Amino acid sequence: MPKDLVEKARELLNANLISTTLSTVDEDYNVNVAVLTVLEMIDDNRIICARFGADRTYANLKQTGKGVFLVLVTDESKQTKDGIRVYVELEDDTTSGEYFERMQRKLAQTPYSKFPLKNCLVFKITAIAPVSTLKK
Amino acid sequence: MPKDLVEKARELLNANLISTTLSTVDEDYNVNVAVLTVLEMIDDNRIICARFGADRTYANLKQTGKGVFLVLVTDESKQTKDGIRVYVELEDDTTSGEYFERMQRKLAQTPYSKFPLKNCLVFKITAIAPVSTLKK
Repeated sequence: MPKDLVEKARELLNANLISTTLSTVDEDYNVNVAVLTVLEMIDDNRIICARFGADRTYANLKQTGKGVFLVLVTDESKQTKDGIRVYVELEDDTTSGEYFERMQRKLAQTPYSKFPLKNCLVFKITAIAPVSTLKK
Repeated sequence: MPKDLVEKARELLNANLISTTLSTVDEDYNVNVAVLTVLEMIDDNRIICARFGADRTYANLKQTGKGVFLVLVTDESKQTKDGIRVYVELEDDTTSGEYFERMQRKLAQTPYSKFPLKNCLVFKITAIAPVSTLKK
C-alpha cells in the first residue's frame, strides 16, 4: 500500500473523529453503516476497535467479516471534502488481553465511558483508498 | 416507517450535504462506501440519485442491489452528531426520461457540472434508522 495513504489513514483514524464510520454487510447482502470512533491503527496493517454498542455491525462482521472504515472530513461552507477509506477484514474478536484493556482505557476517556466494553475487534487492513477517485 | 424519520430523511437527503454517503457491497461481500451527494428523495418511498463517477458503487449495485445512505451531521468541537440512515434497494437504472433529466439539471448546478451524467439510479426505501441506536 502506498506509504502516503498508510500515513493518512493512521492520522485520520487515530484522531478518533466523530465522523468515523464502519460499513458492514450480512450474508444476505444487507448493508449497514455505523459510527464507530473509539479505535486505533496500531501498525501499518492493523486496527483495533472498541465495540460497546453497534449490535448489527458486530453481527454482520461475525457473518461476513468484511467492512470499510471511512473518515470523512468536510467543510460544508467551502463545499470541500477530504478523508480516507480503509478496507478491512475481521481478524480477531477479543474480550480480554492487551488490546482489550487498551480499548477499555481509551473508551474510559470518551463521552461513552459509562458503557462497558463488549469486544475489542482486531481488523487486518486489506486496502486503503482516497475518498474520491473521480478523474478531474 | 415512522413519519418523523421519513421527514428527517427527506430534509437531510434533499439538503445534498457533502457528508452524504452510500455504502454498497459486491457478491463476495466486499463492502464499499462512496460520497454521493446529487440526489433527491422524491416521495416517502423513493430516492433518485445521479451517478457520474462511483464506478465501484455502481458495479456493486448491479450485483447485489442493496445499500444504505448515511447523512451524518457532526460538530467536532461540540463532539455531537446527528443524521439519518436510509436503507435502500435499487429499483431502476435509467439513462433517459424524466428522472434522468431532473438529475441532469441538478448536477449542472453543482461543482461536478463538467461531468456528464451516466445514470439516474432509482432506489426504493426499505427502512430508515437514526444514526445511533445506543441506549443511554
